[in-house]
Amino acid sequence: MKSDKVLYHAEMVNKEGLPGRSYVKGQGELNVPVSSPLKPQQGANPEQFVGLALATCLNATLQAIEKQRGFEHKSQVQVGVDMMYDTHGYQFMVDGQVLIPDQPRKIAEEMLAEAETRCPVAKLLQGSANVHVHVVDVFDFATAVDS
Amino acid sequence: MKSDKVLYHAEMVNKEGLPGRSYVKGQGELNVPVSSPLKPQQGANPEQFVGLALATCLNATLQAIEKQRGFEHKSQVQVGVDMMYDTHGYQFMVDGQVLIPDQPRKIAEEMLAEAETRCPVAKLLQGSANVHVHVVDVFDFATAVDS
Repeated sequence: MKSDKVLYHAEMVNKEGLPGRSYVKGQGELNVPVSSPLKPQQGANPEQFVGLALATCLNATLQAIEKQRGFEHKSQVQVGVDMMYDTHGYQFMVDGQVLIPDQPRKIAEEMLAEAETRCPVAKLLQGSANVHVHVVDVFDFATAVDS
Repeated sequence: MKSDKVLYHAEMVNKEGLPGRSYVKGQGELNVPVSSPLKPQQGANPEQFVGLALATCLNATLQAIEKQRGFEHKSQVQVGVDMMYDTHGYQFMVDGQVLIPDQPRKIAEEMLAEAETRCPVAKLLQGSANVHVHVVDVFDFATAVDS
C-alpha cells in the first residue's frame, strides 16, 4: 500500500559547518549550536542527531505495536553512537538497544522485528553494516571513549 | 587505515515514545520535546533529526575539503525529509542539496563525491534507495505537504 502522498515535509540547514548552528526551517523549530565532538566547543553533533533519530522513531513504533497488542507502553530505546576512523574520513558505529520490561524475550524480539519493518529511520539505516539493533535486559554500552 | 579506537561516544534516549522527550545523556546536552508531526503537539521529530544529522555532517565534511583545496568555506547543505506511507508503516524520502557558491558545477560535484566517501552520516544512509544527495545552483524543495 505505497502512496506518493507526502504526509509531512521538513527542511534542515547547516551553513557554517562546524562550529556553527544547524536548524529546522520554520518558527519555533529546533535551532542549535553544533560543534565537532573532537573540539572543546559545546554543541550538538551528527552522532547525537543520528542517535536521537533512531531512539525516537524506533520507540514511537514500539509504542504503536504495544498499543495494537493491548500492552501498556513500557518500551524504551537507547542508542549508542561511536565515532571511529574509517578508510576515508570517519565512520559511526550505531548500537540500538531496546528494553521492553515485563515482556518475555521472545515477545520483545518479535515486537522489535515488527518495528524494524515499520520504523522509517530503522529502514534508512538497515543497509549499513555499522548499525545493530537488539533487545536487552539492561542497557549496557560497553564502549567508552578510549582516550 | 581502519582503527578500533573510539574517538567519541554518545548515548541518546527515548522512553515515553511520542509525545515525550528525547535526550542525549550528560549534563548540558540536547534534551528536547518530541512529537508526531501528524499530531498538533509541538516538538522535534525523527524527520528533523535525520535531516540535521545529514546537513551537519555533510557540510562539515565539505568544509574540510574546501580547506584542503585552499578554498574559502562557502558550502551549505539543506536536507528535505518527506514522510510517506510505506508497505509497512511509514518511510522517509531524504533529499540532500549541496550548494557551493563560486565553484563550477564539475568541481562542486567532485567535492561532493569525495565528501560522500568521508562523511559518516552519508555512509550510514548510502544503502537506502530513499536517499539522494546532489549539487544544486539554488536550494529548491519541490515537495510541499500535500494536504
